[in-house]
Amino acid sequence: MAIKREFVSASEAQPPFFVGVDVGGTNTKIGLVDDRGDPLSYVQIKTRPAQGPEDGAARIGQAVREVIERAQLDADDVHRVGLAAPGTMDIPAGKFLEPHNLPGWFHFPIRDRVSAHSSKPVTFANDAGAAAYGEFWCGSGKEFQSLVLLTLGTGVGAGIILDGRSIDGAHGHGAECGHLIIDCNDNARRCGCGQTGHLEAYASATAVVQRTREAMQQGGSSSLQQHLDAGSRLTARLVAQEATAGDALSREIVMDTARFLGVGIVSILHTVDPQAVAIGGAMTFGGSQNELGRAFLERVRDEVRQRAFPVVAENVIIDFATLGSDAGFIGAAGLARADAAR
Amino acid sequence: MAIKREFVSASEAQPPFFVGVDVGGTNTKIGLVDDRGDPLSYVQIKTRPAQGPEDGAARIGQAVREVIERAQLDADDVHRVGLAAPGTMDIPAGKFLEPHNLPGWFHFPIRDRVSAHSSKPVTFANDAGAAAYGEFWCGSGKEFQSLVLLTLGTGVGAGIILDGRSIDGAHGHGAECGHLIIDCNDNARRCGCGQTGHLEAYASATAVVQRTREAMQQGGSSSLQQHLDAGSRLTARLVAQEATAGDALSREIVMDTARFLGVGIVSILHTVDPQAVAIGGAMTFGGSQNELGRAFLERVRDEVRQRAFPVVAENVIIDFATLGSDAGFIGAAGLARADAAR
Repeated sequence: MAIKREFVSASEAQPPFFVGVDVGGTNTKIGLVDDRGDPLSYVQIKTRPAQGPEDGAARIGQAVREVIERAQLDADDVHRVGLAAPGTMDIPAGKFLEPHNLPGWFHFPIRDRVSAHSSKPVTFANDAGAAAYGEFWCGSGKEFQSLVLLTLGTGVGAGIILDGRSIDGAHGHGAECGHLIIDCNDNARRCGCGQTGHLEAYASATAVVQRTREAMQQGGSSSLQQHLDAGSRLTARLVAQEATAGDALSREIVMDTARFLGVGIVSILHTVDPQAVAIGGAMTFGGSQNELGRAFLERVRDEVRQRAFPVVAENVIIDFATLGSDAGFIGAAGLARADAAR
Repeated sequence: MAIKREFVSASEAQPPFFVGVDVGGTNTKIGLVDDRGDPLSYVQIKTRPAQGPEDGAARIGQAVREVIERAQLDADDVHRVGLAAPGTMDIPAGKFLEPHNLPGWFHFPIRDRVSAHSSKPVTFANDAGAAAYGEFWCGSGKEFQSLVLLTLGTGVGAGIILDGRSIDGAHGHGAECGHLIIDCNDNARRCGCGQTGHLEAYASATAVVQRTREAMQQGGSSSLQQHLDAGSRLTARLVAQEATAGDALSREIVMDTARFLGVGIVSILHTVDPQAVAIGGAMTFGGSQNELGRAFLERVRDEVRQRAFPVVAENVIIDFATLGSDAGFIGAAGLARADAAR
């Protein structure tokens, strides 16, 4: 899915240049962009956490050199590298703490090791914050001064950009909006993090599966059953497919997901009041290309209109994110660019 | 209650000087402070909303001159005025929108009219944001880079300071944390704003009265009954008094208030992750001077420890605010000082 945009050639590009790196549990994306965020080159490598962090840092450094070569630039044309990675992390120190997706990389000084292997200064960032910055700089938020990105997938991720700066927080836990409490009652749903009542326990793909399973166990009839009987696994993707095909139970699950997401968004609006909210991630129900995605988005907007302060409800822009999985490396490069300008 | 601190003399003070104005529905506080936020002089005037906004702006201008005289300074020693007022407002435009507490002042360009009457440039701010800035600059937050102030009174007010800047929001609704949704269920409590499930519907003085009334209607026995029988009105203050005197029902109400406040704080921590949270306002159950206040604060901290991410829970500082009702004008002066430095 990465690189949804056309590459620009070195002659059309606007210097200076920046390389963005988006480290994931499975794959690491490395892209070179110009001063407007337009990509010139891109490679994807396996992260291979089991081979250890020094090996990872070395291969990232090599990939940085590779994207520079592919773009037919000199090393000096690239001013800085942005490195986005999953938490937990100590951003000022440039170190991992204990990232779930990267066992064996705990407490590793990734920023300085990537800097050593790439011979470039490195800006270190949270992956969700980087993706939000990417959308802010070049995607759904490029008309705005402030943006919140919510990504729906296994969990609910978030990034907050206010006045062009990512809100990382005093303890590296800013924008953990998947863990907003939307239900404080004792019987609230349990989140993957172990706590109860979090937005993620209602609006993630994991929650969609759980809520669907419960609805069917409570006797709800659904076309999902024939797929399960045929050995399919219950996934959010399958629920979306059946909702699109007209299954009422599946559609209700999707619309309830929108409703819960709307509740979380209202709490975010009443805290940081951004100009816009973008919804991205793997679970956008087809996005604006699909009737289900459009209905989902409209239901989110409805919930916000019903629950937010009138001025906010009337003026905030809520829409799908546009950069897809490119947002992370583009945003990492953008954060490097912002650092270079300081 | 205003001016809990000692005045400093002009000879001990650190120039330059700033005047802070805190406009309330009933009273307006005007204080002159030095470059460290230490007050040199103070007056309080009636706001008299019914006399109209031009009269109000003129009397504020007069009061600004009065505090300068009282501090035995020249007009030129004061570089700027900070003006804090209740919402709703358009901060960049320096205008009121439709502030509930100031009927008849709707859409008035208060910033420029106070500037005209005081012959000073004026910085315009939300009163809760100004109070948070006051605590950040000179009070409970002065050791920190970021602070959230929550004020418990008739409602729940809030101000958020990150990296020394107040989060006002794109539509002037940043830090409306009283309207975080802590219960998304249909049977959630109704807030003064008309919506359901908001923190304010659980943790304000209004909510304390409502929850106490319900507990007594459900047959809970309480020493409050004798006061009500004697004609006293049920207030949060009376609940606090009886909780201190040993009434179990009253104490449970107070501790539940702390629990709900803790839930709201966790959502704030997982969104902006400040170094510290300060709790102020009229309803702090005696604050750190009182056993009930200390138990209340400890219960808030417990809830946060139980529900927040470990790194946040272990490191965030939660304590009472220290400036009381002086926070607004001191913070307004501080915001003027920050503007003057730009």
